[in-house]
Amino acid sequence: MNVTDLKTLKSVKRLQVERIGEGAGTLDDVVATEEPLEVRLGYALPDGRRAEQSISVTMRTPGNDGELAVGFLYTEGIVGKKADIDSVGPCGPPAPNGLINVVRVELATDVEVDLNRLERHFYTSSSCGVCGKSSLDAVAVQGHYDLHRTEFQVSGDLLGTLPDALREQQTVFERTGGLHASGLFDVGGNIVAVREDVGRHNALDKLIGQALLADGLPLSDFGLIVSGRASFELMQKAMMAGIPLFAAVGAPSSLAVELAEEFGMTLIGFLKKDKLNIYTRPDRVR
Amino acid sequence: MNVTDLKTLKSVKRLQVERIGEGAGTLDDVVATEEPLEVRLGYALPDGRRAEQSISVTMRTPGNDGELAVGFLYTEGIVGKKADIDSVGPCGPPAPNGLINVVRVELATDVEVDLNRLERHFYTSSSCGVCGKSSLDAVAVQGHYDLHRTEFQVSGDLLGTLPDALREQQTVFERTGGLHASGLFDVGGNIVAVREDVGRHNALDKLIGQALLADGLPLSDFGLIVSGRASFELMQKAMMAGIPLFAAVGAPSSLAVELAEEFGMTLIGFLKKDKLNIYTRPDRVR
Repeated sequence: MNVTDLKTLKSVKRLQVERIGEGAGTLDDVVATEEPLEVRLGYALPDGRRAEQSISVTMRTPGNDGELAVGFLYTEGIVGKKADIDSVGPCGPPAPNGLINVVRVELATDVEVDLNRLERHFYTSSSCGVCGKSSLDAVAVQGHYDLHRTEFQVSGDLLGTLPDALREQQTVFERTGGLHASGLFDVGGNIVAVREDVGRHNALDKLIGQALLADGLPLSDFGLIVSGRASFELMQKAMMAGIPLFAAVGAPSSLAVELAEEFGMTLIGFLKKDKLNIYTRPDRVR
Repeated sequence: MNVTDLKTLKSVKRLQVERIGEGAGTLDDVVATEEPLEVRLGYALPDGRRAEQSISVTMRTPGNDGELAVGFLYTEGIVGKKADIDSVGPCGPPAPNGLINVVRVELATDVEVDLNRLERHFYTSSSCGVCGKSSLDAVAVQGHYDLHRTEFQVSGDLLGTLPDALREQQTVFERTGGLHASGLFDVGGNIVAVREDVGRHNALDKLIGQALLADGLPLSDFGLIVSGRASFELMQKAMMAGIPLFAAVGAPSSLAVELAEEFGMTLIGFLKKDKLNIYTRPDRVR
């Protein structure tokens, strides 16, 4: 499979700022780049002809765009494995500012595409009564992995080292202070992959996309650490990727806790060097 | 106009957590509620009959749901003023968990509805070349207010007091640590309205929705403070509401800076008690 990354894109932009207060003056500064990325899907119709469909536009930080596109398609249930994808690459020409902000994912001929899945998957009927429970049911229908029996265990001390370790690998954040990060770690506490983005969903989609492209799904031997909070959508993506432990530096939402409970994931919040909260499945933390 | 709020909904949920490290043990805790909210629109067809359309489902923290629905419809360009709305209220029987998670907004008979606006508005063509600039152009077409000449001036000292003042009014955050906030402040530095949500876009939509329902748009006499970062979408919403100054406790993105520049807004980032960065239109800060 051919994966071409959009290497020309810049993840930071230089500019000048007026600082007031401590260190006042006109300063050279950098901010994290935010640009739209359009994901287009090429696929085979039942009669064998090829079709193209624009799937989404997301505001993202350039870099790892192929991973982002593939991770998004995976967590939305459009592709299931690496072999479903023939190629991933930029779709030109560049926009007026010189950036290429369109990624085209070409599916293998035998992949049946159900574009209805792209409707918000928790929103299956227009009858009244939509609630968190129906969201969870919709995920259950779609989910690939039941994590109740997945074995994975780490110590609380090891978890405490992760926020600093994640931060150390956030190369763009360090310069801009403006990016969310998602990182995978193993039972030894080694962070094995980190992805950054202005959008936290994008950071996680990139991480999952790189795993899919490396044929590494499910990620049942890894934990996930995110720089922010734990929401329904992030938990759902982690569950789709088969990750048994989700650790957030920030707070979890009620639905994040419910999803973790329902699918047998360990959910950790307010992760700090010297303390953490375990919301579900504490048996995975020694 | 009749606005019924969904007062039965809970913005926090009680649960038990295992704390490891400092203060270890099993503790009673609360997390911020996250539940889906469906927004439905009732409107008149050209032939006079009434139609209903489900517009969106967003994951939100219950509370001020009517404001959220109205603010969303306003910032997406579906409604323009209070008189466009006949009524806002909960719809239908509660979900299995007892919550009512559907809001119905009934438009006045003379309002023409252009549902095409709900397509991502920066994404107007499927030709290649999508970029931040085309995003800005799409906002310009849709935008209600040019803020280049809007007079609004505050001192840097006053701005420095706002993060603490915002935090003091974040009643749910204080208990859960899990909510974003948006606040409006006047030239005297008084925070006149605050809204919270697990989603930062929702917090701002609620704030703008309450202004629309009070017939208070444009908000040209107010500044905005947000608890997080400044992104394209948040800046766009603020611009739609006519807010001349946007102050973020966190970092801005490149496109947030470009949007502020294009539309004459003052953008402040990394706002702290003793320092701040001004990215655009520093003349509004004394």
